Amino acid sequence: MADAQNGANTEQMTAAGNEISASFAAAKKRSEAVSAKLEKDPNKFTMLSGDRPTGRLHLGHYFGSIRERVAMQNKGVHTNVLIADYQVITDRDTTEHIQDNTLNLVLDYLAAGIDPNRTMIFAHSAIPAENQLMLPFLSLVTEAELLRNPTVKAEAEASGHALTGLLLTYPVHQACDILFCKANVVPIGKDNLPHVELTRTIARRFNERYAKKDPIFPEPTAILSEAPEIPGLDGRKMSKSHGNSIMLSATAEETAKLIKKSPTDSERRITFDPSNRPQVSALLTTAGLVTDRDPKEIAEEIGDSGAGALKQYVIESVNEFLAPHRERRAELAKDMDSIRDILNDGNKRANAIAEETLDQVRDAMGMRY
Amino acid sequence: MADAQNGANTEQMTAAGNEISASFAAAKKRSEAVSAKLEKDPNKFTMLSGDRPTGRLHLGHYFGSIRERVAMQNKGVHTNVLIADYQVITDRDTTEHIQDNTLNLVLDYLAAGIDPNRTMIFAHSAIPAENQLMLPFLSLVTEAELLRNPTVKAEAEASGHALTGLLLTYPVHQACDILFCKANVVPIGKDNLPHVELTRTIARRFNERYAKKDPIFPEPTAILSEAPEIPGLDGRKMSKSHGNSIMLSATAEETAKLIKKSPTDSERRITFDPSNRPQVSALLTTAGLVTDRDPKEIAEEIGDSGAGALKQYVIESVNEFLAPHRERRAELAKDMDSIRDILNDGNKRANAIAEETLDQVRDAMGMRY
Repeated sequence: MADAQNGANTEQMTAAGNEISASFAAAKKRSEAVSAKLEKDPNKFTMLSGDRPTGRLHLGHYFGSIRERVAMQNKGVHTNVLIADYQVITDRDTTEHIQDNTLNLVLDYLAAGIDPNRTMIFAHSAIPAENQLMLPFLSLVTEAELLRNPTVKAEAEASGHALTGLLLTYPVHQACDILFCKANVVPIGKDNLPHVELTRTIARRFNERYAKKDPIFPEPTAILSEAPEIPGLDGRKMSKSHGNSIMLSATAEETAKLIKKSPTDSERRITFDPSNRPQVSALLTTAGLVTDRDPKEIAEEIGDSGAGALKQYVIESVNEFLAPHRERRAELAKDMDSIRDILNDGNKRANAIAEETLDQVRDAMGMRY
Repeated sequence: MADAQNGANTEQMTAAGNEISASFAAAKKRSEAVSAKLEKDPNKFTMLSGDRPTGRLHLGHYFGSIRERVAMQNKGVHTNVLIADYQVITDRDTTEHIQDNTLNLVLDYLAAGIDPNRTMIFAHSAIPAENQLMLPFLSLVTEAELLRNPTVKAEAEASGHALTGLLLTYPVHQACDILFCKANVVPIGKDNLPHVELTRTIARRFNERYAKKDPIFPEPTAILSEAPEIPGLDGRKMSKSHGNSIMLSATAEETAKLIKKSPTDSERRITFDPSNRPQVSALLTTAGLVTDRDPKEIAEEIGDSGAGALKQYVIESVNEFLAPHRERRAELAKDMDSIRDILNDGNKRANAIAEETLDQVRDAMGMRY
């Protein structure tokens, strides 16, 4: 899951990276092979993706995952988008603003082109039969497998919060998310690879143990994102606490103000040099993404006009890019009851699917009385 | 939960006993105080108890827990009996015979005096809203708290099976069992005390974090069993693999055969001496329980007549004691559809209660959309 507040935590993964590099090559290969098949036969694929409702979506989410979900939906893939409200409490002691965050996520999805008639949007807390899968699935993994997940460790450290039972077991909960709707493709960043690997293990073990003749679960393929990591405006990781991300829901004025106050360096000439000039380069990366241009070309164009001119260009191009999104969003926000209805309808559909899958699981395990 | 195959594993707990002895005194005091209140006002109390459907119930279960449940029910306590089918897979790779074991549990309950009109009988796998509580509850405990549970460690070692995620987290699942129906009394053996302590912690933390003004969950009291540990016929722990337990469902002939072949010692004179003569004493304990007599008195009565006479006495008294149970059981077994209906009706009632509790949890956490 992406976090609707912080970006993906690829950085934290570097330390633990060695552990997964062995399986990474195989996963990359699988990802490419399945992506090619998906282009040919999109309607043979079911996708699951989602976000934690911890804040508003920003440009990083848009280019990192939302855009790809919309593209898959429009190709004809069966798309499912999960609002992972129970994941909010993996490393927090509060669910403050969760209703507001959740409804705003739906707003952003719709404004970004997610079509609720083609994509099922639903929330964890509303789907008991999905959550029940935690029980049989937890029996299929060992304590040792849970404890050695590098992403879980990194996330626990980054949160500054004691590792909760929910954080320890959330990769199993992700397996429930993916498998209840029998998703066979899961677009993710590299740091989520251990979780999809665990989902594959759970699917395989369940089928072997309880459904050998007639397997119930697919072994899903992680579709590794080709999207570039988008830095915050100050060159650091995007984070709410850094105030360095452009929210899809921000006004043009708020966006202009945020970009204006973003730090640059003392060199007048604008060049694209992410290693040595992270702040200026972050502005160029942002402008490049929203204009679909090469950041180097933009740098050359601005040249000696300096940071002020660069910022002006970023403000204009970002606001131009986001204008239609914001317009659709404002229009949709006028009728929040419809937004609630869309979520409740998605929940209803997800419940029906989850109950069907749970029934298959009960049959396979002989738990029919 | 008791295990409908092995007895309670008090023995394995001895090593880890020190860790819980500090809280044991306090728990014992609480147990006594609440038991006294329960005698006065039984209908202010809600009880949760249950068994794993891993085999047939034996005399150890009857005297260790079933009898007490029936007594509570008849006093007017709100009684709930759970068939913990998901707990079967905490330390096993199979759910073989689970349907048969479950329906036979219901048969034994009813034959022993559990009245489905007064006691709710239900199965884990049928109650999604109860199982969903795993998610918020897992967020309230730390990995460290899960890992230091002495009973979980002992059970994992005893099973000879790698510690699964489900075994590691099953005390949290027990918290779901107890709290979804807001049970405030939980009759248990000493070895289950760490689990009830964790349930108290979860209830307290949930209320503090999400329901401060209007607490949702009671902090349940463990009612520590006064029932003596009943040894198997050979003086060892009762266990299916030892073939040393008298099943409630066995015929009089099977029971006679089992008792006849149970080992004794070479001393002719019968004396009650559990430390030095565990086999003879186990037979005396069994006879004492079913006749409600002092085993020493029985020993004196038999005196020099030897093991043959003792066994004859045990056979007669056990079969006499179990005759009405067996008769009711045989009668009930003629109509297994009614047995299924009783379980399904209990499941329906449990679902209604679980959904109500889950709704309160969603409200408290703000997960209403």
